[in-house]
Amino acid sequence: MSSVFTEFNLMAELHQPGEKIVLLVMDGLGGLPMQTTGLTELETAVTPNLDRLAAEGMTGLSIPIRPGIEPGSGPAHLSLFSYDPIRYEIGRGVLEALGIGFRMTANDIAARGNFASADSNGFITDRRAGRIGSDECVRLCAKLQAATGDVLADEGVQVFVEPVKEHRFVLVLRGEGLGGNLSETDPLVTGKQPLPVTDSSGSPEGERSARLFNRWIEAARAVLADEPKANSLNLRGIAKDPGLPRFPEIYGMRAAAIAVYPMYKGVASLVGMEIVDFAGDRPSHEIDALERAWNEYDFFFIHVKKTDSYGEDGNFDAKVHEIEAVDAVIPRILALKPGALIVTGDHSTPAKMRSHSHHPVPTLLWSPNARPDTTTSFGEGACTAGGMGLFHATTLIPQAMGHAGRLKRIGA
Amino acid sequence: MSSVFTEFNLMAELHQPGEKIVLLVMDGLGGLPMQTTGLTELETAVTPNLDRLAAEGMTGLSIPIRPGIEPGSGPAHLSLFSYDPIRYEIGRGVLEALGIGFRMTANDIAARGNFASADSNGFITDRRAGRIGSDECVRLCAKLQAATGDVLADEGVQVFVEPVKEHRFVLVLRGEGLGGNLSETDPLVTGKQPLPVTDSSGSPEGERSARLFNRWIEAARAVLADEPKANSLNLRGIAKDPGLPRFPEIYGMRAAAIAVYPMYKGVASLVGMEIVDFAGDRPSHEIDALERAWNEYDFFFIHVKKTDSYGEDGNFDAKVHEIEAVDAVIPRILALKPGALIVTGDHSTPAKMRSHSHHPVPTLLWSPNARPDTTTSFGEGACTAGGMGLFHATTLIPQAMGHAGRLKRIGA
Repeated sequence: MSSVFTEFNLMAELHQPGEKIVLLVMDGLGGLPMQTTGLTELETAVTPNLDRLAAEGMTGLSIPIRPGIEPGSGPAHLSLFSYDPIRYEIGRGVLEALGIGFRMTANDIAARGNFASADSNGFITDRRAGRIGSDECVRLCAKLQAATGDVLADEGVQVFVEPVKEHRFVLVLRGEGLGGNLSETDPLVTGKQPLPVTDSSGSPEGERSARLFNRWIEAARAVLADEPKANSLNLRGIAKDPGLPRFPEIYGMRAAAIAVYPMYKGVASLVGMEIVDFAGDRPSHEIDALERAWNEYDFFFIHVKKTDSYGEDGNFDAKVHEIEAVDAVIPRILALKPGALIVTGDHSTPAKMRSHSHHPVPTLLWSPNARPDTTTSFGEGACTAGGMGLFHATTLIPQAMGHAGRLKRIGA
Repeated sequence: MSSVFTEFNLMAELHQPGEKIVLLVMDGLGGLPMQTTGLTELETAVTPNLDRLAAEGMTGLSIPIRPGIEPGSGPAHLSLFSYDPIRYEIGRGVLEALGIGFRMTANDIAARGNFASADSNGFITDRRAGRIGSDECVRLCAKLQAATGDVLADEGVQVFVEPVKEHRFVLVLRGEGLGGNLSETDPLVTGKQPLPVTDSSGSPEGERSARLFNRWIEAARAVLADEPKANSLNLRGIAKDPGLPRFPEIYGMRAAAIAVYPMYKGVASLVGMEIVDFAGDRPSHEIDALERAWNEYDFFFIHVKKTDSYGEDGNFDAKVHEIEAVDAVIPRILALKPGALIVTGDHSTPAKMRSHSHHPVPTLLWSPNARPDTTTSFGEGACTAGGMGLFHATTLIPQAMGHAGRLKRIGA
């Protein structure tokens, strides 16, 4: 499929002003039958408005990453934003930082941290520090921040230690000339000592950064030495903001992100979207924000989280009801007269599996100029017969651009 | 999809003699519903013969360029001929020359010309010279041909000035060692002076060619100085024949083009097809030509233009009737017993939009060896359920080759 992946140069050359585009993402939308009805969550939900969009527009099934591959939230959203997630990688450290709302700068290098237990010789005895609670994580991070925040100041580097949950935290080093390709310290099994951070880029930045991380680790382990459980730690996924091509420049659209959870605001900001702040956490509150921001932007990414959360919980009915809550706000979006409206998910999260899954994602594209296909309802089964076919998620934005009159003709 | 783009080396290695192939292209075939019936032009047309081919063969939807992108005629036909139009570009000057039937040689470099109005200081006041008529364009080109045809003779370069329509003309310089990557002179706004032609290739050919174009422009503007409206001009899209890989060598087929309009003969000749001359301009006349040429060639490209013209006019009914006129000649094509018959369009031109559009193109592939799918009529809706699925136009020729027994087995 690689050449259906968006050619950014081509898009940058062809884009022109046009109608507004809305990308409405229900996280983990795709599902599986779990009840005697044999219907998925989306097929079970009563969605008169989405069904109308499916009848007037086109439907299909989106492949987020590659066939058979279960997407994480970061890669899945990159793909929806038209960035092939295999080509454009975001380091796990960066994703973890985004996930807690930490705004990275170009001088930042982030790592996922895991508190761990070690014996007197430093050999790891528990890679999760006895599964300490989140409150304990907060205390330990505050302790580390206080004791190690300035430990690299002599080299002009600031240290940020931020709690995530349970044994997980984020470490960010901020300073000029950090980089390289840095290894993880986690031996991945107990009974071994943590590994040192090493650089495989061979660059001066890499060697210096590896040395700085090792200096911090040594200081941090000393601070933790008296802890009953979390007396050691490991760092993983050490990475910088990848400096992705900018969505607004590729597509010539002022782009806004309307989301409740930090992680999704973070991925949107990584590609250059602006974050719209608003009060509340329900779909209706997100549409309030959409209405207020409508005149300021050309493109709107709206993220609904709870469809995924309920899927992860195995709560089929709650996911159904959240989909119905989204259906109820569709008329308010249409009232704004977008040139193209996409309703999709970043991946599937079947309640039956209590997990993200590789299954393709039901998708609809509505536009006044859409060519109606034969589908008259929005659901996984109907989408298999849709006019968009089985497509890669990275083609969604270009398809919406075409429908919104935002791409010039190519050639004579 | 690049993995599905035709690998020319592979085709050249695998091709073998086989049955004859016909590629019947109805320009702008794809449409949109525009009437209370909710049917497209093709779905409205009464097409018993095409419906029979759809029932016996396979259907699908073709993506000419990339999802969402509106194709021009040149790139769209390159794609049908299996050349990825993003990879193989034809300069606008070349397309304009092809469009008026000017046969370019390897020594030619062509430019689109626009007559313009300028003030006494040469600042452009009207980029279209007050929208002069085509008769005026003919007179001006004759005047320029007479006065500047030999102005570059001292450097062994011939000049051709050919009218297109209204303010548009074609300029061709013919001589040894022309080339480079040459800029346009059009400032794109009024109130500015035209720019000089510059070369960004850095090659000796480029520098010389830029100088020659600037010499001609100076001479031409002097000749036009006394014109009331068209007293200036601009050159755009300066380009040579791109020297595309040759279709007959890639596929081992003697290829013929049967078309009424120069532009399509031109693109076909660019890939090495031979042009079949014939009298008349109706589909039936094109089939007369097909019957006469049948024994001379292995592959036939037949181009029907008016489906696109009526779409551009917004004339839904006339487009319907032209499709029906094509349906009426299908039995004559089948009587010749082709090994594979493709019926498709180069792009969509919905009468509703009065323009080319990005929408995928309904396509059928009939062959005695085709595996029938479930579609029993030829239309956009039916094609969404067709066995060919949603595919890139560049894969059509290889699919026809397979059905016509023209590709060897790969491997044991």
